[in-house]
Amino acid sequence: MKFLKTISVEEFRNILNSIQKIVTDEEIVSLGDCFNRIISRDINANINVPHFRKSRMDGYAAIAEDTFGAEEDNLIELELIDTIQAGDISQTKLNRGQCFYVATGAPIPENSNGVVMVEFTDRQSNKIVISKAVTPGTYIIEIGHDVKEGDLIIKKDTLSDLATIGILASCGIKEVHVYKKPVVSLISTGNELVSQDIKELKIGKIYDINSVVLKKAIENTGVLVNFLGVVKDHYEDLKYIINKALDNSDIVILSGGTSKGEGDLGPRVLEDFTDIEIYVHGVKIKPGKPIIFVKMKKKILFILPGYPTSALSCFYVFIDNFLRKMSGFPLREKFSKEMEVGERIYSTVGRHEFKAIKIQENEGEKKIFSIKTGSEAISTMFYADGYIEIDELESIIERGDKRRVYFF
Amino acid sequence: MKFLKTISVEEFRNILNSIQKIVTDEEIVSLGDCFNRIISRDINANINVPHFRKSRMDGYAAIAEDTFGAEEDNLIELELIDTIQAGDISQTKLNRGQCFYVATGAPIPENSNGVVMVEFTDRQSNKIVISKAVTPGTYIIEIGHDVKEGDLIIKKDTLSDLATIGILASCGIKEVHVYKKPVVSLISTGNELVSQDIKELKIGKIYDINSVVLKKAIENTGVLVNFLGVVKDHYEDLKYIINKALDNSDIVILSGGTSKGEGDLGPRVLEDFTDIEIYVHGVKIKPGKPIIFVKMKKKILFILPGYPTSALSCFYVFIDNFLRKMSGFPLREKFSKEMEVGERIYSTVGRHEFKAIKIQENEGEKKIFSIKTGSEAISTMFYADGYIEIDELESIIERGDKRRVYFF
Repeated sequence: MKFLKTISVEEFRNILNSIQKIVTDEEIVSLGDCFNRIISRDINANINVPHFRKSRMDGYAAIAEDTFGAEEDNLIELELIDTIQAGDISQTKLNRGQCFYVATGAPIPENSNGVVMVEFTDRQSNKIVISKAVTPGTYIIEIGHDVKEGDLIIKKDTLSDLATIGILASCGIKEVHVYKKPVVSLISTGNELVSQDIKELKIGKIYDINSVVLKKAIENTGVLVNFLGVVKDHYEDLKYIINKALDNSDIVILSGGTSKGEGDLGPRVLEDFTDIEIYVHGVKIKPGKPIIFVKMKKKILFILPGYPTSALSCFYVFIDNFLRKMSGFPLREKFSKEMEVGERIYSTVGRHEFKAIKIQENEGEKKIFSIKTGSEAISTMFYADGYIEIDELESIIERGDKRRVYFF
Repeated sequence: MKFLKTISVEEFRNILNSIQKIVTDEEIVSLGDCFNRIISRDINANINVPHFRKSRMDGYAAIAEDTFGAEEDNLIELELIDTIQAGDISQTKLNRGQCFYVATGAPIPENSNGVVMVEFTDRQSNKIVISKAVTPGTYIIEIGHDVKEGDLIIKKDTLSDLATIGILASCGIKEVHVYKKPVVSLISTGNELVSQDIKELKIGKIYDINSVVLKKAIENTGVLVNFLGVVKDHYEDLKYIINKALDNSDIVILSGGTSKGEGDLGPRVLEDFTDIEIYVHGVKIKPGKPIIFVKMKKKILFILPGYPTSALSCFYVFIDNFLRKMSGFPLREKFSKEMEVGERIYSTVGRHEFKAIKIQENEGEKKIFSIKTGSEAISTMFYADGYIEIDELESIIERGDKRRVYFF
């Protein structure tokens, strides 16, 4: 077992990057439900699109050779024998010297090889007078022009977007094999936490926020979240629920239970597992130290701080894109911008700090300001526009310094 | 009635911008379902957060005055009389000369006014030796520090994000009043269209793509989509379904039925309505001319081109952000970048063209290339990375010219 205590941000990022994508089973979903899912098999076209020759224009389908020589001063006359609207078919046969009216998208008669645009014709009852010759193939969309039967149209492991759905729909494909979403079990721990179902809060108790906020943040990464409830700080209870979560999910995320107090149960429970590959106890960051990370068999477990603001910060900094990699979702673009610091900001030496900040107008310019409420306050999350990173060895950032802001 | 024929892109954008946000009714949703919804009422805090005084640290809660004078060379001794973990309460009363152990988050005894960090203490059985004095208030989180009962915490018309959900969860609020999503009815028209449920495609028929692709694109703007099916090009049928859609939804989007052929029914049906405020028949753009736009009573109706690639282009250029404005969703950021054109590109004079393009490496640089398949091909959508705008009066963009690419 690789047992690592308080490692740097860089080391932790390297460990996360080294974890391979989880390979989940397949499931079949309807075309309408496959948006943003990962296709699990190569898909070949089962039909030609279009599967019949059709007109690209409103005009007259004819035998191109019959129009040869037609010019404004050498009009050629064809006999109009049928009209085909889009969606219709004609039972009539086209012979030399004849033509069909065809609407855009209508099927072209079998032996027609050119369409004369309406603009270059004049209709006199059942006679069509043509003032421009067409070469063979003009304004005809041939069979398979768009998609050819048998062609590979969607590659395995593609993230299904609107274009993917469009091309499958054009082939009449109704159901698609996709990878199942990785399952993340979420557990809130702490004797002080109660669910929103409790109406009267007793002294000492607080509402659990992570079961709502962290759950939604995790869901937004394309995984399936299984919330296992609020668990008390009790060794046997916690061990039982962690075991159950490891059995039933790919990834387990606990919040709470990492502080150094007497109730610090999460790490104690984990250290009793025997099949751990990597164990990271604590990443040198603020807020949120220590993050616990465990890899065992093919399962991954994180313990995040209990304070919702700290939990969410840690989530965004490390776990968001990790889960997106696992699910195959597009990574979250890190919108960042260098800005001036509007007031002196303090940090703790010895920890790489991700400090929630707000942007405020100051002397006509948008600048970085700290948020006075601490990481224990849910309102910190509310006021924060983003965060800045403060190096392990920095204790003060002076007003006027420049910092890169990562926006939420 | 304001009846406008083939207007410019600029004029059309101005009309769309002049439309006021739709005001929908309210509905109540659970906290877990209110992400990305628009809150419809001011929300005041129903409790203080926290609603009891609690410790910010693991340490000893005492009467601050008892610690005055404590230094490393002037140790002060207090009697430990109880231990309070987070979530617990103590029945014991704190007297002068005494202290309680309190974990982070645990309630502070009533007459305690300071917490001494564990780091500055030494425990000798039930004696706690203190080497640092604390001032009143130290490491105590007071009642309402985070949220004060009665305070306005969420303003009406706020788009609910994770922080909104967090602050509501901290107050134990389980249900939220939100505006109902605007309802968009979607109708595909065309005799040639069949649903994906049909297994064998007859000659002349093609699968309807807009009911799947356009539906998903519309859903992504935060509205509710009601797909009314594929409707044949038949005056009475179309009039019936448009009437029904106008009655049951805020916005109606038809695809197809705008070409100039004999089957051009949509505009004919619309012109028979008597209560039209603004009627725009055709915006000078390619692909997709004409877009039909109608405002009647409080309802809005668009007719988009039938070709899925054209329909989706028109949707992204005009309708996407219009619907987001209606639903209160964040507008789609237009990611754009100026790039070099890698080959000569042609356009039609007299129409403002939104041309789908792909980005390819050429002479070691990423450049703009046109897509050879036309707007009738679903594969055009598949290959496109974005679009460029080509002015009404331009017919050729030369290789080496610079253009702004708007990415999908």
